[in-house]
Amino acid sequence: MILLDVTLRDGGYLNQFNFKYDSIHEILLHLENTNVDYVELGYYKGPASGGEGLGVTANINLDVLEYFKELFPKIKFVIMLHPKNVSIEELEVLSNKPIDLIRVCITEASLDQGLEYVKRLKRMNHKVSANFTRATWIDPHIIASYMKQAENNGADIVYFADSNGSMYPDKVAEYVKTILQYVNIPVGFHPHNNLNLALANSITAIQHGAKYVDSSLNGLGKGGGNLETEIFISYLERTNQNQKFDLLKAFEGKDYIIKEFSYSSDYLLNLLFGIKDYSMDYMKVVTKECESNNFSVKDYIYHNNIKGCS
Amino acid sequence: MILLDVTLRDGGYLNQFNFKYDSIHEILLHLENTNVDYVELGYYKGPASGGEGLGVTANINLDVLEYFKELFPKIKFVIMLHPKNVSIEELEVLSNKPIDLIRVCITEASLDQGLEYVKRLKRMNHKVSANFTRATWIDPHIIASYMKQAENNGADIVYFADSNGSMYPDKVAEYVKTILQYVNIPVGFHPHNNLNLALANSITAIQHGAKYVDSSLNGLGKGGGNLETEIFISYLERTNQNQKFDLLKAFEGKDYIIKEFSYSSDYLLNLLFGIKDYSMDYMKVVTKECESNNFSVKDYIYHNNIKGCS
Repeated sequence: MILLDVTLRDGGYLNQFNFKYDSIHEILLHLENTNVDYVELGYYKGPASGGEGLGVTANINLDVLEYFKELFPKIKFVIMLHPKNVSIEELEVLSNKPIDLIRVCITEASLDQGLEYVKRLKRMNHKVSANFTRATWIDPHIIASYMKQAENNGADIVYFADSNGSMYPDKVAEYVKTILQYVNIPVGFHPHNNLNLALANSITAIQHGAKYVDSSLNGLGKGGGNLETEIFISYLERTNQNQKFDLLKAFEGKDYIIKEFSYSSDYLLNLLFGIKDYSMDYMKVVTKECESNNFSVKDYIYHNNIKGCS
Repeated sequence: MILLDVTLRDGGYLNQFNFKYDSIHEILLHLENTNVDYVELGYYKGPASGGEGLGVTANINLDVLEYFKELFPKIKFVIMLHPKNVSIEELEVLSNKPIDLIRVCITEASLDQGLEYVKRLKRMNHKVSANFTRATWIDPHIIASYMKQAENNGADIVYFADSNGSMYPDKVAEYVKTILQYVNIPVGFHPHNNLNLALANSITAIQHGAKYVDSSLNGLGKGGGNLETEIFISYLERTNQNQKFDLLKAFEGKDYIIKEFSYSSDYLLNLLFGIKDYSMDYMKVVTKECESNNFSVKDYIYHNNIKGCS
């Protein structure tokens, strides 16, 4: 079981990626103490919506990366990138940088480009993960066939993301089982917690053969948040599967996040988006549509299906 | 699937059962709007530790019960009792009262007495549930054999409680499957949320054949809290199993609870008790022992096994 912490990357959606350097330092310290396997430092060249006007973990400076690697030599660092934000030639600057894993985001629409990026990064001797987003909008057999192509292009890991926070255990089991019929490389799962199912889904993923799980301190992350690193460790502890993680150190990290980053999100709205399997990217569109029609947003979403969101 | 709300009974551990009558009224209104199947109004004659100095839902006055039944005729009311707090003759005063279900708490030590109470209440034509507490401390086959005896004594339902908040899905599955090999009456599950597994455990219980699940608004309840009524409904909603509950009304109830009842509990301490399968009743003993020895309570519990707690 390999735990990949995404506090600095996915948590960035809550503060426009504006982490101060000493906050990054402190978070890395907590994660090193907790002994998580991988730490995602941020995006390279921006999230899906681009990097304009965003803070430091939206576009990791490679000198900064080297600086933190020197300070935390034991941490395995991860960066995530969207092919549309980086030309394939630009990938060359990542050569010989202390990056232990590069994750390439791939949607159905960007499949061919994504596969090219995987191939190129692999030729540069990087460890590469092909991360398929919005898995619920793609049939499990289709996504598994894409993953097989990623494997053939050299991917070391394939991930599927519950981007809308709408998965439930049976659904996760269906995806993992199907994917494992197609690929021989390790499978990873990126949960979201809109339905309070991030833990249940991650347990199910692992029990069906997934090897990697993403989590963040206190669940800091987009929309309904992520799986809480410390909660997942407590499950491993309870079931005698914890061989390396330090639960109390993870809780120190959680306490730091609670103290420093108090973002309020609309719990019920995120939950309703999870129930409807709507992308969180449409949250503004939906709430605007409701408001302009004088609908109560939550009543409207609960009782209707809104076109274009799923 | 039958949802039994325990906000007023289990939530009472957080305010010494001191609910004001207009709070009870408002909570019942939210629960009626949500359309939960059963509402537990409180204990009759006190919780396990007795009822001295406790508030109204620690010992429901039968006139009060009749008053609320008149106000909310659609609600099915439940009371819970511990045999050691009520003599078997006293049960007669419950005759012809508007009680839709009586739950008798049974431990291994009180088995024979508990079975007698089940038999007596059944003879009085009550609907009766035999509720076995601290299930993790009793082997599943043993607890199932006790439940078979309860069935033979007339019980309509048998429950097992994750009193220590220490169960995880595989464990819940083991209990439900074993119990169903022994009994033919419906099985219920009372979760706690110390390990953030109340939802995962309840889903597992239902999928393996349990029919009743206990929950409370906002999870209001002892120690790590209960399964959140509104979260369980959202799961049913997402998986197209919700035929009767109103999610938005449940959230109105949750909001009321958040507004009126802000009790802080030590999240990590409850979680550590769940990991260790310690009874929450020993929390004071354990923290005192650690403090008198100048141990850091959490470090000590995490790294040691404390005798007498499990």
